[in-house]
Amino acid sequence: MRGAEALMRTLVDAGVDTCFMNPGTSEMHFVAALDRVPEMRGVLALFEGVATGAADGYARIAGGPAAVLLHLGPGLGNGLANLHNARRAAVPVVNVVGDHATYHARFDAQLQSDIETVARNVSPWVRRVGSTAEVGADVAAAVAASLGPPGQVATLIVPADLTWSDGGAPAEPVRPAPRPAVDTSVVEGVARVLRSGEPVGLLLGGGALGEAGLRAAQRVAAATGAQLLAETFPTRMERGAGLVEPTRVSYIAEFATMQLASLRHLVLVDAKAPVSFFAYPGTPSELTPPGCERHELAGPTHDAAAVLEQLAEALDAPAAAAPAGGGRPERPSGALTAQSLAESLGALLPEGAIVSDEALTSGLFAPAATADGPRHSWLTLTGGAIGQGLPVATGAAVAAPERPVVALEADGSALYTIQALWTHAREGLDVTTVVCNNRSYSVLNMELDRVGVDEQPGPRARAMLDLHRPDIDFVDVAQGLGVPATRATTADELVVQLERALAEPGPHLIDAIVPPVV
Amino acid sequence: MRGAEALMRTLVDAGVDTCFMNPGTSEMHFVAALDRVPEMRGVLALFEGVATGAADGYARIAGGPAAVLLHLGPGLGNGLANLHNARRAAVPVVNVVGDHATYHARFDAQLQSDIETVARNVSPWVRRVGSTAEVGADVAAAVAASLGPPGQVATLIVPADLTWSDGGAPAEPVRPAPRPAVDTSVVEGVARVLRSGEPVGLLLGGGALGEAGLRAAQRVAAATGAQLLAETFPTRMERGAGLVEPTRVSYIAEFATMQLASLRHLVLVDAKAPVSFFAYPGTPSELTPPGCERHELAGPTHDAAAVLEQLAEALDAPAAAAPAGGGRPERPSGALTAQSLAESLGALLPEGAIVSDEALTSGLFAPAATADGPRHSWLTLTGGAIGQGLPVATGAAVAAPERPVVALEADGSALYTIQALWTHAREGLDVTTVVCNNRSYSVLNMELDRVGVDEQPGPRARAMLDLHRPDIDFVDVAQGLGVPATRATTADELVVQLERALAEPGPHLIDAIVPPVV
Repeated sequence: MRGAEALMRTLVDAGVDTCFMNPGTSEMHFVAALDRVPEMRGVLALFEGVATGAADGYARIAGGPAAVLLHLGPGLGNGLANLHNARRAAVPVVNVVGDHATYHARFDAQLQSDIETVARNVSPWVRRVGSTAEVGADVAAAVAASLGPPGQVATLIVPADLTWSDGGAPAEPVRPAPRPAVDTSVVEGVARVLRSGEPVGLLLGGGALGEAGLRAAQRVAAATGAQLLAETFPTRMERGAGLVEPTRVSYIAEFATMQLASLRHLVLVDAKAPVSFFAYPGTPSELTPPGCERHELAGPTHDAAAVLEQLAEALDAPAAAAPAGGGRPERPSGALTAQSLAESLGALLPEGAIVSDEALTSGLFAPAATADGPRHSWLTLTGGAIGQGLPVATGAAVAAPERPVVALEADGSALYTIQALWTHAREGLDVTTVVCNNRSYSVLNMELDRVGVDEQPGPRARAMLDLHRPDIDFVDVAQGLGVPATRATTADELVVQLERALAEPGPHLIDAIVPPVV
Repeated sequence: MRGAEALMRTLVDAGVDTCFMNPGTSEMHFVAALDRVPEMRGVLALFEGVATGAADGYARIAGGPAAVLLHLGPGLGNGLANLHNARRAAVPVVNVVGDHATYHARFDAQLQSDIETVARNVSPWVRRVGSTAEVGADVAAAVAASLGPPGQVATLIVPADLTWSDGGAPAEPVRPAPRPAVDTSVVEGVARVLRSGEPVGLLLGGGALGEAGLRAAQRVAAATGAQLLAETFPTRMERGAGLVEPTRVSYIAEFATMQLASLRHLVLVDAKAPVSFFAYPGTPSELTPPGCERHELAGPTHDAAAVLEQLAEALDAPAAAAPAGGGRPERPSGALTAQSLAESLGALLPEGAIVSDEALTSGLFAPAATADGPRHSWLTLTGGAIGQGLPVATGAAVAAPERPVVALEADGSALYTIQALWTHAREGLDVTTVVCNNRSYSVLNMELDRVGVDEQPGPRARAMLDLHRPDIDFVDVAQGLGVPATRATTADELVVQLERALAEPGPHLIDAIVPPVV
């Protein structure tokens, strides 16, 4: 059996049956193997950042890894930003990078580069396959490594000759490492803190933001008065009717400092202590108030939900009633603004939806407007590398074809990986993309004012942050890439278009013209 | 003076007055400095690969570096593929990457990553600025390093706090290292080889493909009967009326082997010995025939044109007459094919044009059809990382606003950095983009057949290489990004549209529907 087939069979045997790819010559045998391993679904992306972001989105929803197939160092480079986001999301990704044949490397042909070096930036586990016979075992090891815990990007570099040579054999799946238990004394210590009467915040991240974690956290909060917080950019947060909504720590450091100001203790549940996203002149990087003690209840290797349940038991916390909630917003009418856009989404979000949220400033009001809607999953920009939202929506839709996906996108961010729309069309994915088109890198206009440019920023600086001259017509761009699209300039139009897009299967895009909020 | 202004002033003082940028928060002070340093032109790109490819194209035409401004590790990642191409082009690029404030790094905020590691893959010179006082000197050193020789990507990592702090001062330009002379004995040795009567090829690359180099090489060839060859993917080749046209070594290894088969000696003039672009089962990587001796006349640090002149003098070679040439093709009529597309370009290419050629298989006939046209410059895909053509055209047009630029693009390649079109529109660049739209990764279909997949490639493999379902409408995409566009489905339509696009200033795109050539 050729190495390529052994590679693909081992993936499938380990449960990895989806591969987002942008292959080149050195990966042609992997591509050819698709016809021998029908269990593997190949999903073509027109740019590598779409493939890597899709693998991230897939893992967030499927709970297990997809594979990515990339073409040498430059392909990996193009996929790097979304692998950075996947690293921050702590999701499993099996990242297969093709390379020149072993004997060809020394000739330093045009595409030769140092793949390992680039991969290490995003992938703690990097291995180069050394022989065709070892392909199977290396793939099985990569899948296990990707699962961690915690989940991570595992990069396997595969020289072309080892895929085309015979002598490969599929390998048995490798059992991933078990999640370690949290010591009872840690749980009891946190329980004592919670009973102390001092102000305590429970900062939930990662695996704590699923249904089980939220229910246990709600019991803890109800029994002790602890404040429930969520990390700023969760990988996946379950939300909606019946679920408690922790307060997400603000991206804006000044607001976050206020949110945390009264806390004497911060309990970390699969979350890092909050730090400023960027540094600003004269502003501290750490956001917790001086004297606030931190206590790690669970880290990324633990089963955060189970540990929260342990904690609830240790506190004898009774089951908590479903939170009352304020109900869904009415369908808005009148001007289209970030607020009415959020209300449209809140009014129409379907049961079981997945929201890929990369709307940045224009999405400011969307979480509040959807909190009391039907149950849904909320996916965010975990690593700050924009261009993640459309690819993550792609992968989420592939992982859960029965769930409607909404990509809530910023105009600037959408353009980094706009090629994702074509994959939406080709695969018939049920993704409704709403581009919040404010014709600006609005977040940067805000940042320009925040970073201490004490003189008034001038027109030449502002010009580097605006996205008009010319205005971008996302209707045209989407239609060019095969996705039906409409433009909304009023809230009424958006409501009609969004309702229709959500009702029809397959991809749609709405170019929602909104004024900047900042 | 703030560090950011010192940075920008030093660039301008060293002659670097153009910066292609996709900045983020950590680069806001650099952006703000644009209003204090009016000599610096900031050119916004909507994706980092556009910015880095534009810097490459700029350098190819201007002969000196532009700066690039990127946002931390993920921004560098997005720009990496075209920095790879720039590295292979051996052009100078001053690559400025913003980073978190020095004191913020230890908090491992979302965008924290190892920038140096990623940069080293493409940038032999990497430096991190250590203090605001040193910004000026480090920038001056970066500019000098970029100039080499040979030209290279020089990466300067600039923590945000060092740009917003006071205490910076511009530094004097640093004189770049001089080009070393080639030892007379080397020139005489090559002259002896050329006089030996044995078959000799002169393989020209890099700086040997400018007008002076070509004229000297023509003298050598006329006097000795040496065969003139050019590397497969030149950085910049001067072409057209009055200039000799060396035969470019074919991308297809089998053809290249035939081109070189009769040679007993190969003289390398700022070119590497030809190797197969990829390895294929049972095919050698080296393309020169066994027993062919190689002689390096000039390497990348030398002034290749001057050394060729030395060689011509050593051979007492007289001035050679302008080559006769076969004349320009007629305007084609009838079906639109790769051949008639090439003829259209050959018939209409204006005097002084710059062609950015990333048409891959569809561009196969374009060099021959344009060889006898008016003088022009031809820029190719130096590093094999597709997505270079539109950005390179961007930079070339910025560098030479008086010259018409033609981007001859493949559909698949165009999509990697399609955002370049918006910069064409915003800057009013005189770029005519011709997308050879064959709705396929045609080169990969060819490669799939070449890499020894002995079974017939199946439909699932072929599906990963086709670009229809849905067809991409480049007219819509271009118009959405602000570039006027038309579709040509016959040669007659293409001729009319191309003539009009070339006559009108500003950007245009033609979606040329062609059948695949392979």
